[in-house]
Amino acid sequence: MGFTGRDILALEDFSKAELLAVLKTSLLFSQMYDPQLLQGKLLASLFFEPSTRTRLSFEASMKKLGGNVIGFSDWKDTSIQKGEDLQDTIKVIDGYSDVIVIRHPDNGSAHAAAQIAKAPVINGGDGSNQHPTQTFVDLFTIFQSHGSLDGFSIGFLGDLKYGRTVHSLVKALKHFDVDMYFISPQELKMPRGVLDVVPPHRIKKETNDLYEVAGELDFVYATRIQKERFLVEEDYAKISSGYQLGMGFLTKAKKSVKIMHPLPRVGELQHELDESTNALYFQQAHNGIPVRMALLSLVLGYAQDVLDHGVVKSDVGLPIHH
Amino acid sequence: MGFTGRDILALEDFSKAELLAVLKTSLLFSQMYDPQLLQGKLLASLFFEPSTRTRLSFEASMKKLGGNVIGFSDWKDTSIQKGEDLQDTIKVIDGYSDVIVIRHPDNGSAHAAAQIAKAPVINGGDGSNQHPTQTFVDLFTIFQSHGSLDGFSIGFLGDLKYGRTVHSLVKALKHFDVDMYFISPQELKMPRGVLDVVPPHRIKKETNDLYEVAGELDFVYATRIQKERFLVEEDYAKISSGYQLGMGFLTKAKKSVKIMHPLPRVGELQHELDESTNALYFQQAHNGIPVRMALLSLVLGYAQDVLDHGVVKSDVGLPIHH
Amino acid sequence: MGFTGRDILALEDFSKAELLAVLKTSLLFSQMYDPQLLQGKLLASLFFEPSTRTRLSFEASMKKLGGNVIGFSDWKDTSIQKGEDLQDTIKVIDGYSDVIVIRHPDNGSAHAAAQIAKAPVINGGDGSNQHPTQTFVDLFTIFQSHGSLDGFSIGFLGDLKYGRTVHSLVKALKHFDVDMYFISPQELKMPRGVLDVVPPHRIKKETNDLYEVAGELDFVYATRIQKERFLVEEDYAKISSGYQLGMGFLTKAKKSVKIMHPLPRVGELQHELDESTNALYFQQAHNGIPVRMALLSLVLGYAQDVLDHGVVKSDVGLPIHH
Repeated sequence: MGFTGRDILALEDFSKAELLAVLKTSLLFSQMYDPQLLQGKLLASLFFEPSTRTRLSFEASMKKLGGNVIGFSDWKDTSIQKGEDLQDTIKVIDGYSDVIVIRHPDNGSAHAAAQIAKAPVINGGDGSNQHPTQTFVDLFTIFQSHGSLDGFSIGFLGDLKYGRTVHSLVKALKHFDVDMYFISPQELKMPRGVLDVVPPHRIKKETNDLYEVAGELDFVYATRIQKERFLVEEDYAKISSGYQLGMGFLTKAKKSVKIMHPLPRVGELQHELDESTNALYFQQAHNGIPVRMALLSLVLGYAQDVLDHGVVKSDVGLPIHH
Repeated sequence: MGFTGRDILALEDFSKAELLAVLKTSLLFSQMYDPQLLQGKLLASLFFEPSTRTRLSFEASMKKLGGNVIGFSDWKDTSIQKGEDLQDTIKVIDGYSDVIVIRHPDNGSAHAAAQIAKAPVINGGDGSNQHPTQTFVDLFTIFQSHGSLDGFSIGFLGDLKYGRTVHSLVKALKHFDVDMYFISPQELKMPRGVLDVVPPHRIKKETNDLYEVAGELDFVYATRIQKERFLVEEDYAKISSGYQLGMGFLTKAKKSVKIMHPLPRVGELQHELDESTNALYFQQAHNGIPVRMALLSLVLGYAQDVLDHGVVKSDVGLPIHH
Repeated sequence: MGFTGRDILALEDFSKAELLAVLKTSLLFSQMYDPQLLQGKLLASLFFEPSTRTRLSFEASMKKLGGNVIGFSDWKDTSIQKGEDLQDTIKVIDGYSDVIVIRHPDNGSAHAAAQIAKAPVINGGDGSNQHPTQTFVDLFTIFQSHGSLDGFSIGFLGDLKYGRTVHSLVKALKHFDVDMYFISPQELKMPRGVLDVVPPHRIKKETNDLYEVAGELDFVYATRIQKERFLVEEDYAKISSGYQLGMGFLTKAKKSVKIMHPLPRVGELQHELDESTNALYFQQAHNGIPVRMALLSLVLGYAQDVLDHGVVKSDVGLPIHH
């Protein structure tokens, strides 16, 4: 299994063994890391759309490992303004950097970039298509909390039709022993095409009533229902209120239930939950660091020992940090 | 006295002893520093409003000490666009970084951030409320020029009503043996609430005529009178011209008078002053580096020796730099 | 010959010996470099206009050599918004940094900055005036490809009237034994003032017909013809099509012809050329790194050995990198 030089474009490109290798490497980086591991390496951070957590966690990960970053956070700062096509921009920047992360509004843009660049390309979100590093963060958060990716139940809540993060997470979890519940308004059900990749006996229920299944869930993965999906604003207000989580939900749920959310949230998680032991969403956001550290190190060829031996060798002598 | 982990939100939070400790630490950093002191540390530089000198001097200070920076210089590059509240943004970024500096247009925003973040938060300016690191820079500039903060006179000139920098500086100087003069148009007088914190015998005069007191001043701290404060543009032009400094002022002033200004200036300091030995304002801007180096090092726990012993121990062996 | 502390404002400021010294230093940096050469040094990267390749290649060069960067990529992030003049911005930032690169829309802005700053100022493009580091990149690309700057022919193609890069390159090549061809629409001919600096016997032909001279050229330097130059859009389409290069051109040209372009291109180089051995334009863009590494190191005083001895001394022991 080799990650060196590999592009990270879509979650589906990874086998079960590869997913687990990334998660184990991330676990190591969450415990300790060498602050000079990527010294001399340069990340090109190309954000053609605004982003807080993806951009900043990639840049923080690179810098915490001793690497450095060039890039932009807005396409208006680039020559695309002068009519240059994306391919030329990538081909030029490829000559300046060792690894590229790209966020771009067009589906397929990261794949197009990967065809051009010699450096490994990481997809930081291409339109409504893929955002694989978010899914690695989600998987790692479950892995870290539950101890494995087998033997738990998860409910997906809210907008299951348009949310690329839930589509991608469901497709990744098909490899594992997981019971799935899908809870959404009728208008925003999980698409057939996504459900079809899951072994049928893993789909426990599709429902529009959270409280019908609240007591069954070890994890609930909430998503934002966007106002723009509704023609009539009252419809939005009425419907979305049934998919918001607060202390009321906790009285009906398992005591140990863990609440996840890719953030940003708007109203779907009430602030009263934030301090409860059930809230996992900020931990999830913070896991952007070890996961992206792992991915950057893997594609740059600096974490092969972890992959080969499953653990870090004790004589490597990495300094413990954080 | 401990600074490690401390937020820097408002000048009033600092005792006289603490102010002096910061200034002495800044003096050390103006003379020498260890270019690897903050290696492995990450500053989150969150500028929700444009800024040249505050942002760049924080980032330069961090990098000169071997640390690194993530962040943004414009709120439009953030998830706030998607409706995320400031608290969530801070809580997420807190997990990525070791220290946070925030500039935000809303009064109280830095305090709100500090309540959320575990990392120390430094207020880089919250609306019209506070800009404490600017005041540390101002105090340090006087301290460095005069040798102490006692035994001098200072005139505050221009818009004394709305200028947060002069309010904050006056409140800090109340601890010291300083004669104060307030020179402004009637419409832009120093607010009663600020004057009330100063021992009455320290207030030497309030006047709208600079030349009445010009010969008394060791320092004059000029500020910008903003056009927007006046309904009629001619009023602005007529009034503001009486509070502009040029070579004419020097003929009436003490030979040793020092002119300060927080910059940016627009017309209130004529360029003919720039090369005079009386101009202290560029030195003041450049002092952003040692002062912000000191503050970052103090809150990150890397300057305790200076605080404990008042001087750097000679066996620390810091390389002299610059 | 000394480069330490020198501003790089205009190509004309460099003698033939100095041009060659820069190119030889660039050649060294294209082969190996010390990733800690500029450790502790800070570049202020001041881009008042958008730029991809100039900004990113300067920042990448600085970081690959162990230095760091502060700055902005958009004037809207600066105090210029508040009415501050450029001189004050430069004077303040000069106190924060060791070297400054500035791109600004106004002709002469880099010269104005250099008069203010103590740090060396590098012109990253000042309006339609000068962009000397682009010309160094162009010269280096020929030098690297041909082995010297003497004994070849070059055709300048497209908009020769307004293109500052071709003006600057022609003026630099006047020092060398080079045959020049100028190929453009009648409306966009090379200005008399530029031609006058070239020894007359070096000007082989001015023509509007590329195919008249295609077989003579060792290098062709293509430029973009801008739509805005034409009142009638059909005129643009008709005329510009005669100055576009594709596989058809290669059938008429020398087998070894090398195609250069400062990029970004819009339609003037067809993508079918990209993989041919004749395409030199991406190599040219990538040469931004060694050339800007050399220039930064020279003005910061870190490449004097190369200048003094013509070669790197073998006992310097630079680690080979890349």
